[in-house]
Amino acid sequence: MAHRPQGRVADSDLSLVTEPIPDIANGEILVRNIYISIDPTNRLWMSDVDQFETPIAEAAPIRAMTFGEVLESRNAKFKAGDLVTGQGAWETHSVMARARLLPHEEGVDLAAHASVLGMPGLSAYFGFVEEGQPKAGETVVISAAAGAVGSVVGQIAKIKGCRAVGIAGGPEKCRRLIERYGFDRAVDYKSAQWEADLADACGDGIDVAFENVGGTLLDCVLRHINDRARIVLCGLIASYNDAGDWQGVTMLRNVLLRRARLQGFLIATYWPRLTEGRQQLKRWVDEGRLKWDVDVVDGIGQAPAALNRVFDGLSTGKQLVRLTDDPWAGEINNQ
Amino acid sequence: MAHRPQGRVADSDLSLVTEPIPDIANGEILVRNIYISIDPTNRLWMSDVDQFETPIAEAAPIRAMTFGEVLESRNAKFKAGDLVTGQGAWETHSVMARARLLPHEEGVDLAAHASVLGMPGLSAYFGFVEEGQPKAGETVVISAAAGAVGSVVGQIAKIKGCRAVGIAGGPEKCRRLIERYGFDRAVDYKSAQWEADLADACGDGIDVAFENVGGTLLDCVLRHINDRARIVLCGLIASYNDAGDWQGVTMLRNVLLRRARLQGFLIATYWPRLTEGRQQLKRWVDEGRLKWDVDVVDGIGQAPAALNRVFDGLSTGKQLVRLTDDPWAGEINNQ
Repeated sequence: MAHRPQGRVADSDLSLVTEPIPDIANGEILVRNIYISIDPTNRLWMSDVDQFETPIAEAAPIRAMTFGEVLESRNAKFKAGDLVTGQGAWETHSVMARARLLPHEEGVDLAAHASVLGMPGLSAYFGFVEEGQPKAGETVVISAAAGAVGSVVGQIAKIKGCRAVGIAGGPEKCRRLIERYGFDRAVDYKSAQWEADLADACGDGIDVAFENVGGTLLDCVLRHINDRARIVLCGLIASYNDAGDWQGVTMLRNVLLRRARLQGFLIATYWPRLTEGRQQLKRWVDEGRLKWDVDVVDGIGQAPAALNRVFDGLSTGKQLVRLTDDPWAGEINNQ
Repeated sequence: MAHRPQGRVADSDLSLVTEPIPDIANGEILVRNIYISIDPTNRLWMSDVDQFETPIAEAAPIRAMTFGEVLESRNAKFKAGDLVTGQGAWETHSVMARARLLPHEEGVDLAAHASVLGMPGLSAYFGFVEEGQPKAGETVVISAAAGAVGSVVGQIAKIKGCRAVGIAGGPEKCRRLIERYGFDRAVDYKSAQWEADLADACGDGIDVAFENVGGTLLDCVLRHINDRARIVLCGLIASYNDAGDWQGVTMLRNVLLRRARLQGFLIATYWPRLTEGRQQLKRWVDEGRLKWDVDVVDGIGQAPAALNRVFDGLSTGKQLVRLTDDPWAGEINNQ
């Protein structure tokens, strides 16, 4: 990071630097990154707002989850050739002190571990099921519904017997929500009458909202919540590019008057239950009840553009940057 | 209500009307009101915003909790002379189909049932204890802390072993928080450096916030919440007089990034546990651990001014309008 971005990330905010691959210390592994996970959180980490993790320091690499192959290990838990994930950076090789072995025996390609079986899928699962407490027959509204998290939330809502209403940008994504992910209704927030469309789609009101966006979109959702609604606040991507105050919300009135619960959610809470969550997601994938998609661009130089694709709503599925071939790709790929 | 108020209630928004006392039907009682409870909610009910209870219809009386004596009963549960509370109106006599007998044997004056043992005390008790889930050693911040609800929350916080920080307007109220109600710290939001004072008073941050106000004040509170904070949203009085959009909040970021919970709270949820709550509050009053105060003005014509006193922060204790002598007053009055 050459300097902290103001607004959207520009290529000029970053420098592409070539350095020798460092030696690793005792306990560490050297990982050749295959995929870099591109998440809205990357942009948040570039800001110096007070947040859960430390903001990225200026001149430091852009922190990111990466997925790759162990080249060299000085850690008894890993050996060369293992496929792992961990906190790396926008870089071809990462030195990690902690990583998680990716279980090849599950028979899905590496990209699945970066999406439906990784942070986005687990966020959808634990955020929706544990914090949202959905009951069969309830109406669930999901913003950024065509995204890596939202598309999984909608499908789990259907599995749990709920009505799933997705909010997404543009007719193509809305069609995808219905046809590929099985949402009951899709609302295009780019349409002039989208607020009326949302009211219509929600029918008797919203029982669970899975919120990824914030700002005026959240206000519209709050206008339609039912008594005792649960709003899982998983992201506020409308504001991650903002320098000053974040977009405000004026409809807290309904949180009060409908006795609703607005629950801030970070997946970090559920790391101890990762295996349980991944097994459940894997079962649903195997049963064909959970579709997942990745949007792959090639080359580390594409990382800033890939991040902007996420904010512009251009990604179709989990956004990844691929640095080299995925050794598991094509084995079982349910796309 | 002559017409729906715009902004603060003006005398001209209301008409004082004299009508014959109506006959009561089977199952009803006729109550001579002794106290009218003046609550921020009265103003909310005068608005036509979508809310928990139905807005007051134009030309209808101003709905309010009242406390009075049964003059005539066609309901087997009540007899003439009983003291009761129920949903009445800004009126000298109310016909009620449902009411609650006030238990004289508890040995406190009638005003106690309108304050510490009534809706304000019960809101403080259930809102703070059940929704706030305070733990000993935690820091609790209370807005409108010198009010009928806030002053009780602060005292319960101390009983539960928490640090109690109160936000109130002006040095006199702040002194009252410390000296009469035993808060650890009091922050005067009318002071120019109040945000710095709040940060200082909160020490290591806020674990539980009991929020009655909303708007910029809530934003300041949210700036200082800790990971896993619970914010009990009990009122948004900063906006009850507003005609259009309510005051916005920009710091939802911290609800997300601190995994906080913003929980809308209405006392209606806890009516089934009223007796339990009142018994606990009564025990604390008897033990001298819970001080309570009422601010009484006389005469039904004072009701609109009394409501504005609440919004202007001029009430010292629960605001009541007294219509006639309190038959229990002075028996035990812990003021």
